Amino acid sequence: MKNITILGSTGSIGTQTLEVVRANDDLKVIALAAGSNIRLLEQQIREFKPRIACVWDEKNAKELKENVKDIDVKIVSGMDGLIECSTVSDINIVVAAIVGMIGIRPTIEAIKAGKDIALANKETLVTAGHIIMPLVEEYGVQLLPVDSEHSAIFQALNGEKGNEISKIILTASGGPFRGKKRSELVNIQVEDALKHPNWAMGRKITIDSSTMVNKGLEVIEAKWLFHTPIDKIEVVIQPQSVIHSAVEFLDGAVIAQLGTPDMRLPIQYALYYPERRMLSGERLDFFKLANLTFEKPDMDTFSSLRLAYEVGEIGGSMPTVYNAANERAVEKFLNRKIKYLDIPDIIEYCVREHKLIENPSVEKILDIEKTTYDIIESKW
Amino acid sequence: MKNITILGSTGSIGTQTLEVVRANDDLKVIALAAGSNIRLLEQQIREFKPRIACVWDEKNAKELKENVKDIDVKIVSGMDGLIECSTVSDINIVVAAIVGMIGIRPTIEAIKAGKDIALANKETLVTAGHIIMPLVEEYGVQLLPVDSEHSAIFQALNGEKGNEISKIILTASGGPFRGKKRSELVNIQVEDALKHPNWAMGRKITIDSSTMVNKGLEVIEAKWLFHTPIDKIEVVIQPQSVIHSAVEFLDGAVIAQLGTPDMRLPIQYALYYPERRMLSGERLDFFKLANLTFEKPDMDTFSSLRLAYEVGEIGGSMPTVYNAANERAVEKFLNRKIKYLDIPDIIEYCVREHKLIENPSVEKILDIEKTTYDIIESKW
Repeated sequence: MKNITILGSTGSIGTQTLEVVRANDDLKVIALAAGSNIRLLEQQIREFKPRIACVWDEKNAKELKENVKDIDVKIVSGMDGLIECSTVSDINIVVAAIVGMIGIRPTIEAIKAGKDIALANKETLVTAGHIIMPLVEEYGVQLLPVDSEHSAIFQALNGEKGNEISKIILTASGGPFRGKKRSELVNIQVEDALKHPNWAMGRKITIDSSTMVNKGLEVIEAKWLFHTPIDKIEVVIQPQSVIHSAVEFLDGAVIAQLGTPDMRLPIQYALYYPERRMLSGERLDFFKLANLTFEKPDMDTFSSLRLAYEVGEIGGSMPTVYNAANERAVEKFLNRKIKYLDIPDIIEYCVREHKLIENPSVEKILDIEKTTYDIIESKW
Repeated sequence: MKNITILGSTGSIGTQTLEVVRANDDLKVIALAAGSNIRLLEQQIREFKPRIACVWDEKNAKELKENVKDIDVKIVSGMDGLIECSTVSDINIVVAAIVGMIGIRPTIEAIKAGKDIALANKETLVTAGHIIMPLVEEYGVQLLPVDSEHSAIFQALNGEKGNEISKIILTASGGPFRGKKRSELVNIQVEDALKHPNWAMGRKITIDSSTMVNKGLEVIEAKWLFHTPIDKIEVVIQPQSVIHSAVEFLDGAVIAQLGTPDMRLPIQYALYYPERRMLSGERLDFFKLANLTFEKPDMDTFSSLRLAYEVGEIGGSMPTVYNAANERAVEKFLNRKIKYLDIPDIIEYCVREHKLIENPSVEKILDIEKTTYDIIESKW
């Protein structure tokens, strides 16, 4: 029996993790944490019977507590609640699928408590890779990526311990605006940007995919996860999203993981690694596929991707600014406060204005996030 | 230092193995064996200074002995010579790259002497898989495939010990006659069939590639090498020869090995497994590639592929007949004694006429080969 905590259980990764749990009777949910969707969290509590459930906001937590008073479950809230969920003594693995920087501290505490981490929260490594990776080493836990690209790379590295990576090939669908020039993106509306060609995901990440900021963050994440210099990480547009990513070794062999677009695969893989379990669902059919195409990313139109390389190379506090600026800009775009092309412009502005801090602590990272938000608030 | 024997050193795989040796100063050639090309073998002896060299024919051996009398090398011949080469006490690995059934016995003796085998000889597993695989187990040696497809599958299986294979995807270029109907192959000449679109290989295997008999033999080999039922081995035409083969696991993940067409990669991989070493040469460039296409094999035009599945499923002595009939038919075609489409017809005739023997011994296998040759000689 594997005991798990899911941070972010009502989101896209969270609900799909619960689908995996539903299909495997040796996975037991011990703790669930959600942001604000207490309606769905209540359903999840009734179905999966965790011992603890956390809601970010205290008022929501009270309401939930009232709603589930017929059940034996402890309701907690806030950062203390999240940390309580991620450090329960008998859990084996924490699925870190909370969106945003609030995911960092519970992840750090989980590592310190010796838990394996199935990591879906991008901010953790992007902003705090220099803190997380040494901790993972020190506490001897496993850090298992939960997104299709990094999971693919992780799978490609299976059994290759000690073999030198000459290049990571990080694939990208190119998003809904692939092939367009910057001038064609001037009037993009929220609805246009939310149409991802291959993957059904949350709203924030779908916008990030359209701007290729998502790929930029993945490049920085890959640098940390696979101990690889950023100039050895190559983004390749593979519009069919069939090759989920690949690794080229020093002998020239390229090992790739391919599949249908199904997030349950990397989730389940992380939960059972190195074991593979049956997963229901469509299989890749090469004959239906007919052909796969490859393109260079257009770093002029998707300038945030180029900026991510720059920011990832510099490191320190820069990726935090990049990420925070994007987070707030996307929020403003989704709320129709700014135009689509303001997103890359805001990120670039914040990065250019920022004075580098070499090895920011978690507190400093959160400070920088807030400062970045403030700058955006005052200017846009 | 790794000490190696190369059986078939003057052939395509043999010479490329020596290229790998040339580039790595911790590989030492202890024994070389060739069929009849004593001119090239002499050069190889002078360059690589093996302790033993074998020539199949005794007359050639005598001539070679005379030619290299200035060097300290023992010249041997025939089957005894081959076995002596493959069982030298201080060698670690035997590259079994001899073409034809004469490769079986030296390979068996090498396994019994505890040597790892880098296997490029197809006949060994096709005809004697039921003998070889238990011996490999019994003597605890490694059987490392040296061809691009099986090496790709082997690489895809890296680190996946215990994980169930749901399908092997064995790729094929489709050869020079891909897309043609049987009626269009009536007047095919030797020159046409020798034009392989992607790989530069020996004459016999190039013809086998054009008839897809080569892929049929590979299906049967894969069955043995990867302990996989033949109906879980799917041939996929991938005309660009970029995906060298792949494995689908029970969770739906497909792991593939991709690369440029360079036989030195599987050779070097087998020699150093599980370590990867630097290999000079062109790298796969996804951007140059632009697109990859996939097609179903046409089992009506390339009926020998369908027959291979049948023969591989039945097992026993059937694959021996299939292979021997093909061997002789291709020889006759290359000597312009028969027409191109006589090749599949001869194979089919011999298979249909043959009475199955369940678990043939090596002697029986060689008998069946001879009988098959005799049948062909008497009828064509």
